[in-house]
Amino acid sequence: MLYYADYLALDAVLGAQHPESDKHGAPAHDEMLFIITHQTFELWFKQVLFEVGSIIAKLNSEYVHESEIALCLSRLQRVNRIMEHLAAQFTIIETMSPGEFMDFRHFLNPASGFQSLQWRTLERTLGLKDQRRVMKSYTESLTDTHKRDLETATSGPTLFDVVERWLENLPFMQHGDFTFWEAYQVAVKNMFERDRTDIRALAEVEHRDPAEALAQIDASERGFLALFDETTYSDLIEKGARRLSQRATLATLFIATYRSEPLLQTPYRFLDAIIELDKFVSLWRFRHVMMVSRMIGMRVGTGGSSGHDYLTATIKQRVFDDLTSLSSFLLPRIHAPQLPKEIVDRLQFVNEAR
Amino acid sequence: MLYYADYLALDAVLGAQHPESDKHGAPAHDEMLFIITHQTFELWFKQVLFEVGSIIAKLNSEYVHESEIALCLSRLQRVNRIMEHLAAQFTIIETMSPGEFMDFRHFLNPASGFQSLQWRTLERTLGLKDQRRVMKSYTESLTDTHKRDLETATSGPTLFDVVERWLENLPFMQHGDFTFWEAYQVAVKNMFERDRTDIRALAEVEHRDPAEALAQIDASERGFLALFDETTYSDLIEKGARRLSQRATLATLFIATYRSEPLLQTPYRFLDAIIELDKFVSLWRFRHVMMVSRMIGMRVGTGGSSGHDYLTATIKQRVFDDLTSLSSFLLPRIHAPQLPKEIVDRLQFVNEAR
Amino acid sequence: MLYYADYLALDAVLGAQHPESDKHGAPAHDEMLFIITHQTFELWFKQVLFEVGSIIAKLNSEYVHESEIALCLSRLQRVNRIMEHLAAQFTIIETMSPGEFMDFRHFLNPASGFQSLQWRTLERTLGLKDQRRVMKSYTESLTDTHKRDLETATSGPTLFDVVERWLENLPFMQHGDFTFWEAYQVAVKNMFERDRTDIRALAEVEHRDPAEALAQIDASERGFLALFDETTYSDLIEKGARRLSQRATLATLFIATYRSEPLLQTPYRFLDAIIELDKFVSLWRFRHVMMVSRMIGMRVGTGGSSGHDYLTATIKQRVFDDLTSLSSFLLPRIHAPQLPKEIVDRLQFVNEAR
Amino acid sequence: MLYYADYLALDAVLGAQHPESDKHGAPAHDEMLFIITHQTFELWFKQVLFEVGSIIAKLNSEYVHESEIALCLSRLQRVNRIMEHLAAQFTIIETMSPGEFMDFRHFLNPASGFQSLQWRTLERTLGLKDQRRVMKSYTESLTDTHKRDLETATSGPTLFDVVERWLENLPFMQHGDFTFWEAYQVAVKNMFERDRTDIRALAEVEHRDPAEALAQIDASERGFLALFDETTYSDLIEKGARRLSQRATLATLFIATYRSEPLLQTPYRFLDAIIELDKFVSLWRFRHVMMVSRMIGMRVGTGGSSGHDYLTATIKQRVFDDLTSLSSFLLPRIHAPQLPKEIVDRLQFVNEAR
Repeated sequence: MLYYADYLALDAVLGAQHPESDKHGAPAHDEMLFIITHQTFELWFKQVLFEVGSIIAKLNSEYVHESEIALCLSRLQRVNRIMEHLAAQFTIIETMSPGEFMDFRHFLNPASGFQSLQWRTLERTLGLKDQRRVMKSYTESLTDTHKRDLETATSGPTLFDVVERWLENLPFMQHGDFTFWEAYQVAVKNMFERDRTDIRALAEVEHRDPAEALAQIDASERGFLALFDETTYSDLIEKGARRLSQRATLATLFIATYRSEPLLQTPYRFLDAIIELDKFVSLWRFRHVMMVSRMIGMRVGTGGSSGHDYLTATIKQRVFDDLTSLSSFLLPRIHAPQLPKEIVDRLQFVNEAR
Repeated sequence: MLYYADYLALDAVLGAQHPESDKHGAPAHDEMLFIITHQTFELWFKQVLFEVGSIIAKLNSEYVHESEIALCLSRLQRVNRIMEHLAAQFTIIETMSPGEFMDFRHFLNPASGFQSLQWRTLERTLGLKDQRRVMKSYTESLTDTHKRDLETATSGPTLFDVVERWLENLPFMQHGDFTFWEAYQVAVKNMFERDRTDIRALAEVEHRDPAEALAQIDASERGFLALFDETTYSDLIEKGARRLSQRATLATLFIATYRSEPLLQTPYRFLDAIIELDKFVSLWRFRHVMMVSRMIGMRVGTGGSSGHDYLTATIKQRVFDDLTSLSSFLLPRIHAPQLPKEIVDRLQFVNEAR
Repeated sequence: MLYYADYLALDAVLGAQHPESDKHGAPAHDEMLFIITHQTFELWFKQVLFEVGSIIAKLNSEYVHESEIALCLSRLQRVNRIMEHLAAQFTIIETMSPGEFMDFRHFLNPASGFQSLQWRTLERTLGLKDQRRVMKSYTESLTDTHKRDLETATSGPTLFDVVERWLENLPFMQHGDFTFWEAYQVAVKNMFERDRTDIRALAEVEHRDPAEALAQIDASERGFLALFDETTYSDLIEKGARRLSQRATLATLFIATYRSEPLLQTPYRFLDAIIELDKFVSLWRFRHVMMVSRMIGMRVGTGGSSGHDYLTATIKQRVFDDLTSLSSFLLPRIHAPQLPKEIVDRLQFVNEAR
Repeated sequence: MLYYADYLALDAVLGAQHPESDKHGAPAHDEMLFIITHQTFELWFKQVLFEVGSIIAKLNSEYVHESEIALCLSRLQRVNRIMEHLAAQFTIIETMSPGEFMDFRHFLNPASGFQSLQWRTLERTLGLKDQRRVMKSYTESLTDTHKRDLETATSGPTLFDVVERWLENLPFMQHGDFTFWEAYQVAVKNMFERDRTDIRALAEVEHRDPAEALAQIDASERGFLALFDETTYSDLIEKGARRLSQRATLATLFIATYRSEPLLQTPYRFLDAIIELDKFVSLWRFRHVMMVSRMIGMRVGTGGSSGHDYLTATIKQRVFDDLTSLSSFLLPRIHAPQLPKEIVDRLQFVNEAR
């Protein structure tokens, strides 16, 4: 007969708190909080890895069925709720004052959050590349076993990889003589042309030189058009200014532009949930930095880290910047190119197809 | 050399997830979330018990030094933050839909949250009495070992007990011919007398019969005065209408009335934090009921519980009602009796004593 | 040129705080918090009404296009986030102690939260019927103008009404000789028959009388079958045990059972979001009760309400109980009847139709 | 007779939503959310300014009574709860997608959050100096009236100013031949001397050169001792490395070191609450940046701001860094100098003085 405590292995879980201050004969009341806070973080990291892993598995295929995206979205929203909850969890550990931490922090040396295998695995699983890291030697303090575990756990495709491939495989962007990115380019140019006409007209009325305003328009237009030109885009990739492939980027533009069509609703929300995930990972890092800086000031961390500055720098280590910045390239609905009826039809439900 | 994973016993903690659906050859993705949610709940319950236990230990003494109350307050505020966080945690498990739960709930039978030893211990440790419980047989589904563990863990004084005694021991309520509760009674009577005069005057002007309004005043006054009369108070205790001893109740009135005096500031906030704790325990129960009712509708729970109705009833099982209802008996500051200078002096810091 | 403060009408909004305690020459610091808390509640109520109103408008039609449901879902999720946020907002007002409230509460008499026109409008707009209310005279303390405004604002269909109609209009439940509810009944009976066989077999092995267990199965089966029998269902409606029409109820069962089919994914999540809304409204009520009981104990509220008990009773005034209890009637996926290929086909996207 | 809607001026508050998209004949559903989100932010900013203003008024005096600090602490904790709540509020506005914002953002030009008078007032009231700002021209887009209002509202002492003065006035640091900072310096030197002895002993055993480790100790010691030397400290001030006066800094060290003494408990928690405030202001900025970057990508903001980079830079504009970094200079309890009995006595309550 299944029993609650056995099912949850509570003997193991609730027997896993071993304060170092006790072992050193100088019990510090607040060390229990420190331990349990970290253990619950790690338990939730396990859940996050479990969900992200299942999303990657579902997307890691040449053809991804629509209903798989809906499932991936649900799981990603769950992950986001967890990350939001974990960011809020810092409020609990912050009921410990720096003075109380001082009572046991020297016992913990050189153990450090830097050694969290799961966090390192998560970063890599999302798609954070070593070359984009602030600290290249971030695995140095791991044991050899953990170094190997990290390699094994992250030897497959990342979330970034599978999302990119799924986007590249998006059909619908072409039909007959309609090619989405060409139509979009025309729309962009038209929009900027209208802006130029307005500026010149206004300048004439106001007897001002329109040169500066026109130069700004030119710069904006170049920013837009860079997405559509293969050579310029390659340059951006090379310089590290963009990471997502051109084809995948154009697919995100397509999804965002026609997000109201039934078949694109879920993909659009899925892209948005990825942006959210990136945000909540940053939020967790941010709250972590705030907590560390209050606890240990500007001294080195318990694991010999250089502390505050390093952690602050990591906040910017975002994986899906290219999705976040997508909104820079959206056109107002009225200026977007109209989809041919044949494509629109293929984005409906059978039931409602015209 | 201490290592992060060893310090936190992560092998034990992260190796404690054993989905039943896997064992039955019908893996249900969402069971992992179910397990980890419950494990983090239990870990935090351990922390709550640890803090509440330390508060009881500090208060369990004939004389409690002022600075101990400050420490108890800090720890209670920490407990409250944890309970608030745990109530919010239901948001995560609620990302699992009833249909997804259906995929593995039958494997869990008859295990049930009813069997959480720590939750039962917490209820009792706060001071919830068996006779005030909705379900008297709440320990029935525990193993014999856990039944014994529960008795052992709760054989000492409860939070209610030590708070009551600390209040009963509060000095300052008498000095010379000033006795706080006598002065307060006079103030109460004066207040109601003023109310009666106002009512009669208004009735005359408006040519109305003041009888009903006066009867209401009488009833209110009786409610107040019941606190000060030993016999009436004993009756309230006997009927279960009040639980806190008369002396302790009068001390809470004293603390609340003179809460601005330096020595009473921390005791006042401590009483308030206890009210908060009671509230957050109720909030946890409430969110739990909501979650259960969505997950399993009106069927019996996995542990054979009658479910929704029972759980709803438990929300009212509050321990510190008498503190919450205290505000019914407060007087506006201007109507409260003035403290003799000798008592006021004893409520200051050495440094600022006149 | 549009300016931030003009756009947001900040002169009006930030000039709308007029503490009564100031007017009475006895300024109470905490009254500002009291006012601003209520004003932000009311501002968010306006937003909630705006969103719910837009959802009703979209659903209030004979034929609701699939993509409208997706939009309604987004807006409902927004409403849920707002309600969750507002429940948490009580934490701020609870930084005011009962003693501090005592300093100005008498100035507010007889104004009361009972007089919130928007809250009353919201309750009715969701579909709370007067006959299901704890207090029938809930509009009594409104001004005549507000009584009229309430009637006008709630003269159209409620959220309950339009959701019910949308469900009743769900196609797909029949095709050829397949009728969903008949197939579901058969599946239910089969499931219970299997249970009976198991019980009898076990009883024989254990030499026990199976009568009691079998009686329980009979009762459970009757509960299920009541949904499918027109007469029994009418009785439930009449007794107030159910409120949603039989046809709509069967549609919810259909949606929940086949929730993985592309076309039903969004409807399923929409139903779930409605259950969430009901939950968060209850949560708001619950936090409100807790706050009121701490602030004024068991005395009458500032508006002459009977306070605690009344408010507690209102927590159960849920509108969509019938959806929440739906999970009682779900079958495990393997026992659910299989959909004919023709219906499955109509639940796909054009693009992926076989 | 006071009526709810009149008391709260709901006609003004609920009549203050005027979507620009309506005026332009192109109603965008989500603009209402945009307006109400900003209005509730502004309402809460008013509350925050009200509380912070009252704290400054209480502390703006040569002698601050102990019980005033307790009141200031309560109010600061309230402010912190509000700021935490407002940071979470971004979750609501983030239910609006960039595409939906696109539908009305051009109507808002050139209005911008940069023009929030209250936020600018808050920054200055806390003590943010213009020379520490990322963008010096931050008031440029305010109207002349608002520029004047800002000057008027911030012409008095800042929170930083009054906290600094209160700290400088802390008595207790000297008695007879005991001077806290001299005793503390000795303790610091002793601690580092012990460290040096340990390092040399270990080096000998391990046949290693202790030079590098010893150099590190020297550097750490210099960091500590800089606080106690008037000339070095002046240099730090001049370079902008520290802002709080030396006397005030030493007082914070005193309070933190002897935080368990009754009279210092509340001051210690007050300092901690100020650190929290700085943290929550940063958290608000951070969430704001995340929201803006998702909404408008890397384009200029609606008010012509350079957007993302500027906002990111402002996150570091903290006012009370010197308090946050205090934990760098704390000694473990066992190494701290012992207070003379005469000072200890003056830190007790009359009631408990020996």
